[in-house]
Amino acid sequence: MNSVRERADKARQAARILAASPSESRGKALEAVSLAMEERRPSILAANELDMAVARELVETGELSTPLLNRLDISGNKLDSVISMIHSIVAQPEPLENTSMATELDEGLNLFRVSVPIGVIGVIFESRPDALVQIACLCLKSGNAIVLKGGREAEHTNKILAEIITEATSKIKEIPPGWLVLLTERQEVNSLLDEHESIDLIIPRGGNELVQYIMRNTQIPVMGHADGICHVYIDVDADLDKALRIIVDSKTQYVSVCNAAETLLIHSDIVERLLPRVMDALEEKNVELRADERAFALYPDRLVLANDEDWITEYLDYVLSIRVVDNCKEAIAHINRYGSHHTDSIVTENIKNSKTFLREVDSATVMHNASTRFADGFRYGLGAEVGISTNRLHSRGPVGLEGLTIHKYVVEGNGHIVESYEGKGTKKFTHRKLEDCWEPRSK
Amino acid sequence: MNSVRERADKARQAARILAASPSESRGKALEAVSLAMEERRPSILAANELDMAVARELVETGELSTPLLNRLDISGNKLDSVISMIHSIVAQPEPLENTSMATELDEGLNLFRVSVPIGVIGVIFESRPDALVQIACLCLKSGNAIVLKGGREAEHTNKILAEIITEATSKIKEIPPGWLVLLTERQEVNSLLDEHESIDLIIPRGGNELVQYIMRNTQIPVMGHADGICHVYIDVDADLDKALRIIVDSKTQYVSVCNAAETLLIHSDIVERLLPRVMDALEEKNVELRADERAFALYPDRLVLANDEDWITEYLDYVLSIRVVDNCKEAIAHINRYGSHHTDSIVTENIKNSKTFLREVDSATVMHNASTRFADGFRYGLGAEVGISTNRLHSRGPVGLEGLTIHKYVVEGNGHIVESYEGKGTKKFTHRKLEDCWEPRSK
Repeated sequence: MNSVRERADKARQAARILAASPSESRGKALEAVSLAMEERRPSILAANELDMAVARELVETGELSTPLLNRLDISGNKLDSVISMIHSIVAQPEPLENTSMATELDEGLNLFRVSVPIGVIGVIFESRPDALVQIACLCLKSGNAIVLKGGREAEHTNKILAEIITEATSKIKEIPPGWLVLLTERQEVNSLLDEHESIDLIIPRGGNELVQYIMRNTQIPVMGHADGICHVYIDVDADLDKALRIIVDSKTQYVSVCNAAETLLIHSDIVERLLPRVMDALEEKNVELRADERAFALYPDRLVLANDEDWITEYLDYVLSIRVVDNCKEAIAHINRYGSHHTDSIVTENIKNSKTFLREVDSATVMHNASTRFADGFRYGLGAEVGISTNRLHSRGPVGLEGLTIHKYVVEGNGHIVESYEGKGTKKFTHRKLEDCWEPRSK
Repeated sequence: MNSVRERADKARQAARILAASPSESRGKALEAVSLAMEERRPSILAANELDMAVARELVETGELSTPLLNRLDISGNKLDSVISMIHSIVAQPEPLENTSMATELDEGLNLFRVSVPIGVIGVIFESRPDALVQIACLCLKSGNAIVLKGGREAEHTNKILAEIITEATSKIKEIPPGWLVLLTERQEVNSLLDEHESIDLIIPRGGNELVQYIMRNTQIPVMGHADGICHVYIDVDADLDKALRIIVDSKTQYVSVCNAAETLLIHSDIVERLLPRVMDALEEKNVELRADERAFALYPDRLVLANDEDWITEYLDYVLSIRVVDNCKEAIAHINRYGSHHTDSIVTENIKNSKTFLREVDSATVMHNASTRFADGFRYGLGAEVGISTNRLHSRGPVGLEGLTIHKYVVEGNGHIVESYEGKGTKKFTHRKLEDCWEPRSK
C-alpha cells in the first residue's frame, strides 16, 4: 500500500485529466456505476451484513447506538434509493465548462469566465456508506478526484462500494485511474489532513465532534457545518394553524438531523394563545420543552426552566427550547447571536416583518412560513448534496454540483500586449458584454 | 483605544446593518468619500509628505528600497487616479440582492438564491496607501465591514485616509459607524489573525513573505496569492512577431508585479529561429536570461545556465528563465508542476493546441496570444480589484465586487411542511425553474 501522500499526489494527477474529460465520458462512467451497483447487489449486501453483525454486538454491549446501526444498514430499499440518487445526479445539468462571464476587452481580445472542477476533494465521513456513493458520484459528475475516509464500523461496505465504483469507471475512456482513493486505516485521517499541497477541500460528514476536530487540525479549507441550531420564530401576525404545523414538522419530522429546529421564539402578544397548543402537540410526541422565565412563569407545571446553555445547544433529540420575545427585531437579534447560521424560519402573515427577517437573519437559509426541514440539496432541486455549509465563502447552504466547481478566466487574443493601453499607448478597453460562451474545443 | 477583539466585534455588528442597507445609501456613501478626498486633498498630501520624508531617509540608509518609496507616494496624479477609481466602483452594477437561482419547489413554495456580503473582511497591506481606499470602497459597495492593517511606513497617510472615509460615510443614513476599523499597532496583526469568530476573510496585499506568514498563522480563510510564477509558451505554430511582442510585454512592461512572466517555454523546432530575436530584444532592456541546458548549449555566450531553483522563483526583476520543450503537452506539464497557478499564456496559430493548453493548464487565468500582464481586475472590466486569488475556492483570478459576496437561500412558503412529501405524504416537488427575482422588500 502506498502512503497517503503518494495516493493524494496521484489523485492530483488524475484530477487534472478528469478536469479536461468530456461530459459524455463522465456521464457514461456514472451509468456504469449505477449498472454495477445493480449487478453486484448480493456482494454489497453480504459485505454490509458483515459490518452489521459486528455493529449489532456493539449495540448490545452499549458501545454503539441504535440510530448509528440504522444508518449503517444499506439493505431493503436503501440500495434502491442509492441507485435512483445516481440517476438524479446524471440528470443534472453539466456543471463544467459553463461560461459565467464573457467580455470583449478590445477588438479581437475576449475574456471568458468558465466553470472548472475544484480539484481533489477529501471526504471524512461516519457510518452511512450511502454517503460514499453519493459524494463519489457528485465528484465524478463535477470532474473532481476524491480521497475518502470512512468509519471503521462500515469498513466492509465502504470497501466493496469503492471497489465497484473504481472498477466500473476504469473501463470508461478518459476517466483516469486513481481518481477515487479509499483510506481505511484510522491513522490515515491525520495524514489526509496534512496534505494541503494535494487536497483542495475537506468535506466532513459526521457529528459536531468530528467536524470540530477536523477544522482545528488542518490548513485545508473545510466546507460544512459543526452545529445546526435552527430557529422557528412565530410573529405576532402569524396564522396559528400554520405556526403549529411548522413547529411540529421542524422539531419532530426527523429529530437527529441538522435542519431540525432546536429553539422556538414566540412573540409575547400571542404566547398565551399559541403556547398551550404547542404544548399539547409536542407533549404527544414526548418532546421536552425548556422555556425561558417568561414562558415558564405562565405554565410552570408543563415546562422546564431553560438555562443559557440551552440557546447554544443542538439537541438532535426530542427537546425544544422556547423563548418569548417582544418583537421581530428581538427575534432576529437572538438568532444572529445564538444561532449557528444554518436555517431559520419566520411564521407570519405580515409581509413587512417577513422581508425584514429574511434580509436581516444572517443564515445560510432563511424561510418564511415553511418548515426548517426543507433545507436540503435534494428538496432544493440540486439532485443530491455533499453536505450543508455554514461557511461564508464559496458555497453556503446545501452544496450540490455547482459548489464543487470554481472558475478559471480564459483570455483569447491575437498578439495583444498591455503596453498598447498604458504609458505611450493610446488604445482603450471596450469592456463590451458578449453573449458568447467559451468554446473549449477547436471545431 | 478598544482591543482588536472589541473593534472586530463592533465591525461584525456593523456588517449586519450594512448587509441590509439599500443600494442608494452605499452609492451615496461612495460619492461622499470621493468628494471628501477631493476637498481634503491638501491634508492628504501633507500627511503623505510626512511619511515620505521618513521614508526618504530610510532609502538613504538603505533600510527601504526606491520602488517601495515610489509605491508610498500618493502625490501628483496618483490621487486623481484614486478618485477616478472610486467613480469606476460606483459605476459597477449593484452586487447585492441579485437572484442567481429561482425554483418553485411546489405550488406556493419558492426557493431563491440571493447574493449577500461575506461579512467582515480583514485586510493586511504593505506600503501602497491607495490600496486602502480601493479595498475600503469595494467593501462598502459590496456591504462588507472592513478591518485594515497598513504598513508602518504609510502610517500618517493611512490614518488620514481612514479618517476621511469614516467621516464622509458617517453622515449617510443606514451606513453604520464602526464599519471601517484601522489598526495601527504592529502587534495588532497577530490579534487580527486570531479573530476567526468575527473576521470572515483575510486579504493580504503584499510580498510573498507577508502572505506566507499570514497563511501559516491564522484559521481565517485567506484569499490571495503568494507567488506569481507566470509562463509564456511559444508553440511550434507561433507567429514569431506576435511571440516576440508578447514575451517582451509579459516580461518587461512592469517587472515587479505578480502577472509579469518569469519563465519562457519554447518549442524545440523553433528555438533557433526565435531565441536570437528574444535575446536581442531582452538584452536591450537588460534582462538576464537563465536557460536550461538545451538552450544554453546553443548560445553559451549570451545565456546563463539555469538551475532547478529558477523554475520555482518569482524574480519580480529583469530576469527570465528559459526552457526548451518538445511539444505542447510538455509545456503544460512544466507549468502545472512548477507554476503558481496564477496566469499562463500560449502563443500559437494552431487552434487545437491553444484549446488544449487553455483546458489543461490549471491556472486562475489561461491566455492565448495575449500578454500575461492583462490579468488584472481593472483590465478585465471588474472596476477595481481587492487582489488576485490563486485559491481554488470562492473566487479565483482578479477579485472584484462579486468575489466579496456570497449567497443565502431564501424559501417563501405558505405553511408548507416536509411531512407532506415524506412518510405518509404523497405530495411531489415540482422543481420548476422560475424567471422571478427575489423581492427583498414588501411593496
